[in-house]
Amino acid sequence: MSYSGSSRHRVVVVGGGFGGLSAVKALRRADVDVTVIDRVNHHLFQPLLYQMATGILSEGDIAPPLREILRRQRNVNVMLGEVTGVDAVAREVRVDTVGQRSVVRYDSLILAAGSRQSYFGHDEFAVDAPGMKSIDDALEVRGRIFGAFEMAEVTADLAPREAWLTFVVIGAGPTGVEMAGQIAELSRRSLHHNFRGIDPASARVVLLDGLPRALGPFPESLADRAVKDLTSKGVEIHLGVMVTGVDAEGIDTNASELTLRRIPARTKIWAAGVAAAPLGRIAAAATGAGTDRAGRVQVQPDCTIAGYPEIFVVGDLMSLDKLPGVAEVAMQSARHAAATIGRRLRGDSRERPFRYRDLGTMATISRFRAVATVGPLRLSGFPGWLAWLFVHLMFLTGFKNRAAVLVNWLIAFVGHGRPQRAITSQQVFARVSLTANPAGASARHTQPASSHQQAS
Amino acid sequence: MSYSGSSRHRVVVVGGGFGGLSAVKALRRADVDVTVIDRVNHHLFQPLLYQMATGILSEGDIAPPLREILRRQRNVNVMLGEVTGVDAVAREVRVDTVGQRSVVRYDSLILAAGSRQSYFGHDEFAVDAPGMKSIDDALEVRGRIFGAFEMAEVTADLAPREAWLTFVVIGAGPTGVEMAGQIAELSRRSLHHNFRGIDPASARVVLLDGLPRALGPFPESLADRAVKDLTSKGVEIHLGVMVTGVDAEGIDTNASELTLRRIPARTKIWAAGVAAAPLGRIAAAATGAGTDRAGRVQVQPDCTIAGYPEIFVVGDLMSLDKLPGVAEVAMQSARHAAATIGRRLRGDSRERPFRYRDLGTMATISRFRAVATVGPLRLSGFPGWLAWLFVHLMFLTGFKNRAAVLVNWLIAFVGHGRPQRAITSQQVFARVSLTANPAGASARHTQPASSHQQAS
Repeated sequence: MSYSGSSRHRVVVVGGGFGGLSAVKALRRADVDVTVIDRVNHHLFQPLLYQMATGILSEGDIAPPLREILRRQRNVNVMLGEVTGVDAVAREVRVDTVGQRSVVRYDSLILAAGSRQSYFGHDEFAVDAPGMKSIDDALEVRGRIFGAFEMAEVTADLAPREAWLTFVVIGAGPTGVEMAGQIAELSRRSLHHNFRGIDPASARVVLLDGLPRALGPFPESLADRAVKDLTSKGVEIHLGVMVTGVDAEGIDTNASELTLRRIPARTKIWAAGVAAAPLGRIAAAATGAGTDRAGRVQVQPDCTIAGYPEIFVVGDLMSLDKLPGVAEVAMQSARHAAATIGRRLRGDSRERPFRYRDLGTMATISRFRAVATVGPLRLSGFPGWLAWLFVHLMFLTGFKNRAAVLVNWLIAFVGHGRPQRAITSQQVFARVSLTANPAGASARHTQPASSHQQAS
Repeated sequence: MSYSGSSRHRVVVVGGGFGGLSAVKALRRADVDVTVIDRVNHHLFQPLLYQMATGILSEGDIAPPLREILRRQRNVNVMLGEVTGVDAVAREVRVDTVGQRSVVRYDSLILAAGSRQSYFGHDEFAVDAPGMKSIDDALEVRGRIFGAFEMAEVTADLAPREAWLTFVVIGAGPTGVEMAGQIAELSRRSLHHNFRGIDPASARVVLLDGLPRALGPFPESLADRAVKDLTSKGVEIHLGVMVTGVDAEGIDTNASELTLRRIPARTKIWAAGVAAAPLGRIAAAATGAGTDRAGRVQVQPDCTIAGYPEIFVVGDLMSLDKLPGVAEVAMQSARHAAATIGRRLRGDSRERPFRYRDLGTMATISRFRAVATVGPLRLSGFPGWLAWLFVHLMFLTGFKNRAAVLVNWLIAFVGHGRPQRAITSQQVFARVSLTANPAGASARHTQPASSHQQAS
């Protein structure tokens, strides 16, 4: 089916993440027809994915349906599907929706498909160290974390029990720091009184990074403070340590300390790297644009592809000025693309380069503790956490989600609870043998955890 | 590992559903050591599973961890695992926790493993018509329902689009009635303004039952009222119609009307029958007890197995006096078993038969409408709904869940929202081709939807 027949300027946006959604909203009053295409039916508030993985939030809290967010914006069509091809000459994209193929024509195209997990050439690690990019990843990680304590409880021998009680997070960027902090907190606080055979507070939480310091994008003083806070919460941090192998029972590293060369650990979480979505290579092939090592598409200063002023690439899919892969870059570059389209429609075709305005960045350590840069301010501890709380509530999409998230935060931060601890049988822990489905389990095992998102 | 070494009376409870949990709680002050074993880590509030399947509630709302519920009850051990064997002579059960095998000794044993979906000898129907017994089932059904509207939106041809917009619920008991009512409501209310190519309100919702009337356990006047209310909500009800075939694109029936012989429908939900968990046959084989046609274990009037006064069978696993398979029977028979154990420990070994006290039953039709019997009262419409609201909030386990559910109900009943509409890639709709995992997808396809619960 082809969305044609309209004489209005047609804008196609691929991806309903921070970038895509910002572009669509910025086109709210423009005289255009917008089609936004995503592989999943929801917008994902990725900065809180770690809270879903550790049992604080549900998928609905951080993943509202794109259609619902945009239902009042009459100039938008939402389409579920994967973009499998771009014809930059005929100006159309090919879309596959569970086998149902469509062709969607565009006058302007905004590619905002985001990034996916990268295992730096070791995709086989994904089996034992799932990533943290989609709600499926978060459900998987949740099942593994809470399942590990269950396994420890029924494991009598010391060494295998300790392997169930060891959690390794690979990558000390914001996601890794937040994951490690939450695992420490849930083992020390939330699971109190829950077990009879083990002491969950004895869980070992290890955070590794190949770089010599944590929280790369942060000023060094704040990163140091975060490391200190995490250590006091019981997280063991080793920097400058590369992971050389991952298997079901542990990881291997290149650490100089012998005790770190092999860490027996049943639960591993990969938060170490990202690569552009496959759409980057598709678009590059269609336009002759270059890509960088992470698969991001090289663009002109105004975020368009050279020779194709009607194709914009924004956010994590865009290679420009070594901008960081954060939501703010995606939102600002997407709004820049939308503004350029609007200006052109008004007859103003001057090129304006995209300029990123760094508004700050933040990461939580535990309840009541975070590090944050907000404009010129550098905050840590409780003030940092208040800034984090305010900004995240402000940016969450929709009043309903804010209300639901607040209730869950009250339960988790003021109480001791984790409202979302149910392990579904679809998660790997249960798949191994609690279901009567070993074939499906092993087949799913071979799927890289990072393969199922394109658009974010 | 073996839980021995204690000199106190050991009670093992298999299943953490309404029955098992009631037995454990009733033993709170008894001088016993209790071990409760379940295949999943949560207690499931099954009467609200249909709300999870239709996007109102999250899994955490209705499936709190067993450990968390029981953390303050010091005489209880919670153990995750599947009971694979019973040795009624040595008085021990064999447990498998993801390959980790344990043997647990008992002095008294309470079997409360509940029921699972039954396809009346047609397990192959499960592939295309998932059941409604576990949180995995509900996630599956949720993904199929919301996915069907997505597929309809990108399907240009009329007949296949209508098949995506047709939803067939098989079984007009309380679960089937509630599912059909909710699908009608979400298509007519919640999805308003969400689509541009289709009108979700045009969805056809069909409710079928082989019996000549709906809501078997209810008085006929209330069942008639429910049928009337459902019809006015847009549900098409056909009674006395048996399903003879289920495939990906529709169902076949034995209806006399030719138009009902074949109903093209992409989404089918099976709410037609239950059978006892496999533990029923295991226990019967170990004790020589008989089972009925649904696999339930025949028991003495006091809920024990003949010749084994220390083995109790309760709830849906028990065959006694044709009692209905409802939560109240499970809770009352479990409390009866716990009380018997308590009396015996006090030296009183008189047998007392279990007597079920029918407190009533209820089913919602849509927001603000329900049918209910409460003692001698027969309620319908808004009064019935208020009774439903009160009873369900009262019986939900834990204050936190009540608070979270209330928030979601406000959003869904007063607003128009469905907070939980995110389709995970693990659900069948996305599995078909949105993931790069056809092997896993097809392998899971062959798994009967009902195979992954034993204890409920």
